[in-house]
Formats: sequence, structure tokens, C-alpha cells
Amino acid sequence: MAQKLFAERLRRTVSKYGPLCVGIDPTFDKLPKELKEKAKTPTEEAAAIGIFTDSVIEAVKGVAGVLKFQVAYFERYGAAGFVELESAVKRAKNDGFMVIADGKRGDIGSTMKAYAKYYMDVLDADAVTLNPYMGKDVIEPFLPYVDKGKGAFLLARTSNPAAAETQDVSASAGHAYYIYLTDRIASWQEKIEKDKAGYLPFGIVVGATVPEEIKKLRAKHPELLMLIPGFGFQGGTADDAAPAFDAQGNGAVVNSSRSVICAFQQEGGETAEAKEDPAWQGAIRDAAKTAQGALKEAIARRKR
Amino acid sequence: MAQKLFAERLRRTVSKYGPLCVGIDPTFDKLPKELKEKAKTPTEEAAAIGIFTDSVIEAVKGVAGVLKFQVAYFERYGAAGFVELESAVKRAKNDGFMVIADGKRGDIGSTMKAYAKYYMDVLDADAVTLNPYMGKDVIEPFLPYVDKGKGAFLLARTSNPAAAETQDVSASAGHAYYIYLTDRIASWQEKIEKDKAGYLPFGIVVGATVPEEIKKLRAKHPELLMLIPGFGFQGGTADDAAPAFDAQGNGAVVNSSRSVICAFQQEGGETAEAKEDPAWQGAIRDAAKTAQGALKEAIARRKR
Repeated sequence: MAQKLFAERLRRTVSKYGPLCVGIDPTFDKLPKELKEKAKTPTEEAAAIGIFTDSVIEAVKGVAGVLKFQVAYFERYGAAGFVELESAVKRAKNDGFMVIADGKRGDIGSTMKAYAKYYMDVLDADAVTLNPYMGKDVIEPFLPYVDKGKGAFLLARTSNPAAAETQDVSASAGHAYYIYLTDRIASWQEKIEKDKAGYLPFGIVVGATVPEEIKKLRAKHPELLMLIPGFGFQGGTADDAAPAFDAQGNGAVVNSSRSVICAFQQEGGETAEAKEDPAWQGAIRDAAKTAQGALKEAIARRKR
Repeated sequence: MAQKLFAERLRRTVSKYGPLCVGIDPTFDKLPKELKEKAKTPTEEAAAIGIFTDSVIEAVKGVAGVLKFQVAYFERYGAAGFVELESAVKRAKNDGFMVIADGKRGDIGSTMKAYAKYYMDVLDADAVTLNPYMGKDVIEPFLPYVDKGKGAFLLARTSNPAAAETQDVSASAGHAYYIYLTDRIASWQEKIEKDKAGYLPFGIVVGATVPEEIKKLRAKHPELLMLIPGFGFQGGTADDAAPAFDAQGNGAVVNSSRSVICAFQQEGGETAEAKEDPAWQGAIRDAAKTAQGALKEAIARRKR
């Protein structure tokens, strides 16, 4: 018998902590001053990012239950960065967080097998993000992990402004291409068991910056979990994200990265060092609490 | 003044050695027996893959001028794998090869900046593969590398059977979506200088398994370089790939991975250990020569 399915595990976590997923996207330039000062080499920069990441995990413990690691910010340092990613994910899992590895990989089946091995077995993430452009092959090597309670989110309609050009083009009976692609993502899971609340293990990514698209996809695909990026810094609001949730408040997690992990930069951006909050870990925790609260309220408002 | 542009560098390399790109996709199970025997831990497995990769580079020196590293097969070992990737790419560059890092990354601009930093500066690849689904943001951070002679190949029509479902769907005035996407990839480069032979720095990936699509895209976009995977093991022939080249024999490279680097497995697959050629490095070199020769002949036949 399988352990709990991914959708059920996610639902329990969201019900315990709230729908906020804290995005770990650390760049060296934006670290607190005290962590930047000591690092002189790329390996020391990567180590500083590791220390910061551990502090973020510590800060949001008890406030949020899901962490999304953006792989690129670790990969930027190659081997040295992956050392930090692996250590941080281990810590997060030990602390009871669900971990999403956000790498947006997508390739032919034999190649995806190598990615699945790393992200599901070696790194032991609970879910990954995947790019569906190369077709069903992308999810095949992840199917054996479904019974282990793992899942994935595939790109449907992303949060960046440039996405409209490649994703909103009309395809297949007048639907936008991202709708067509989402229909395919659902069809690839026809033989896969839904969890008790009706959700499949392979969900979709839809940006909080495009709330109309969230509504359309939620109506068309009540069986697909949603990972909602673009909340906070990128401009999406809690009310924009709320329609991703079903009437019971299930079915989605909402990611916030920079608004939380850069919260100590009181006037934002790389030039704001002089205005940095010295109690930076507290500022991160407070920002996570605020984001979590705003999301819970928006979902409750919608239910009323 | 910029150094030579990517398209020109690629043309000189292809004109010197031929259009074969050797794909480095090493899996531990398929390594020569002598390399497998000693490895007991994942780090030792990664090291064995590193030794094998160095041997492949040594074997094809003078036979092919372009190497494509499939990042996934190194990433499968996380930090330990990236150590091997970095060391192998350094060796390949020192030996004068042009290096394509095949990771098919694709994300929002700020995230792509981290990938660009790693692949263009730290790893120092000559080109990367990118997934264009998230739009123009994907190439933006790579623009500063154009004047440094670097480039990229973006997925247009991939070689895997499952690709038809997501890429051939009709979009925009009856064209297939992959054609629409290729048109966008060309339009993103409107302000970028072509090299002397008329090629842009951001080319496309089109599978040797879909020769009709190669012909269509070559006719519609004579300014886009092509990286052609799927030749050999996946079923594409030299004659299938030949239409990617212009009348002067320029404009493309053709990748072969397993047919070259697994050439010593005389009856193929993981169970063939007993039938392994003990002179495995020579078998790899011979397979590269054969592939290079077949491609040159097919292109010459087409020109006549």
C-alpha cells in the first residue's frame, strides 16, 4: 500500500500552516551585509548563500509548511552551489517542510530519467517543476514516484510578461495554447488515481499575475493542483491567487520569494544596504506571517 | 570590436572537421566494464563517468570539433556530477572543442540570469540549449554574450515521438505551434547582427527524426542555425539531417550520442557486457569517424 498521495500530503500541510510556499531564490548581492562581507571567492559566495538559506528555513519554521528552491540560484555556482542546495534541502526535510525543487526541466524520456533520479531519490524533493513542451515523455520517469507520495507541477501559464506571446496564442479550436497544453497534461494522467479530494499528482504552474487564466484553468480542470508564482514582488495579490483554491480552500499553494526573503531590505534593491534591517531573520519571519495571513483572508473572503 | 561571432566560429569548426557533434550522455550502467568494477558509491560512479567522458574526448579528438554535454547525466549525481562536468568541459575547451551545454533551461529573466552566469562564464560553454516556452525572457540574459562569440539553440521541433502532441498542434493562421514559436525566436533577434554567412546567434533544435519539419524550417528561416539531435540511435539518418544545411554546407550541426559513445557495446543495451569490445576507446573513435563520413557524404549528395 502506498503512503499518502502527494495531493493529500500537500492538503494536510496547507491546512496546518496556510497556502504560502516560501520561495528560496537567493542571490549573493541581496544577502544581508554581514554574510556578504566575509565571502571573497565563488565557493565562499555559495557558502554564504547556504548560510542565508538555512537562516530563512529557521525563520519561517512554524509559519509556512512548503519551501520552493529555485535551482538556478544554486546551479549558478555549479558543484559548489549544489553542495549548498543538497545540504539546505536535507535541513528543510528534517524540519518537516515539504520541498518543491523548481528547475523546470523538460527533455526526452531517457534524459528525464536522470533528472528524476536526482530530484526524487538523491535530493529527495517532494515535488519538482517541469516544462511540458517536449510532451508526455517529460513525466514518464516520475510515474514510479507517485506511489511514494511525490508529485510535480508543469508549466501552464507563467507569471512573466513575455509569456503572453508564446502561451496565449490561439491553438486547437480557438483555445489558447496554454489551455491546450493543460488539457494534454490532464490527459497524460487519465489512468492515475486521484486523491480523496479529487486531485492528481501532476499539477500546473499558473501565475498570480494572470488571475483570469487562473479562473479559466480552475473551472476547466478541477483535478489539477496549482502552484501559483508571481505573488508579491511580481505584482500578483492574494485576491488574484484566491480563485486557484476550491470551495474547501484546497488545490493550490502560492509562492512568494523576494517579498519574503528580501524583506529586510527596507527600501529594496541592491543599493539599499544602508537601510538594511539588522534583525533580518525577524523581518523575513514577519514577512512570511504577513503573506500567509493575507492569503488565508483572501481565500476566506472568497468562500463567504 | 567583438571576437568572431558564434555562427562564424561554428562554421569554421564544421568546415574543418565536418558537421558531427558528439553527444556526451554517459550513464553508469553503460560504461565499459573496467570503469564500472571499481565504483561502489555514488561519488565513485560520478568519477567513473568523468573518466569515461575524458576518454571519449580523447577518442574523438581530430575526428569531430563540437561536443554536446547533456547536463542531466551529470546533474543526476548533484554536486559530485557537476565536479565532473566542470572538469570535462575544461578539458574539452583546452583541447580546442566547441562545447554545447545541453540543459534546455527556460525561466523568467532574473532566473535565466543565474543560468547564463553559470553556463557562459563559470562553465564557459560556447552555446547552451534553451526552452523557449516562457518567452523572450529566456534569451535576454544571454544577449551580452553574443559579442563574446557565444550562442544558443532553442527548442523548435524535438526528436522524441511524444513531441508531436505538444508541438505540431495548429496555432496562428494554420501553422503548427512549433513554426509559430520558431517565428518568435527569429523575431526576438531582429536587432541582432547576422554573421557573414547570414546566421543569427540563437538557433533552433529540430530532430533528425522529423525531416519534413527540417525542410520547412530551413526554407522559412534561412537565418537560424540548427542543432539536429536524433541522428543514429533515435532513428534519424544522414540523409534526413542533410536538408538542415545550406547550399554551401553551412548552418547546422548534427548530434549523435549513444551511437558513438556506446559503440563498444557490440550488441547494445545494458545486458551486453559479455559482448563488449575491449578496445572501447577505438570503437568510439571509429563510430565518430563513420558518423562524420556519412554526414559529409549526405550533404555532398544533396549539393550535386
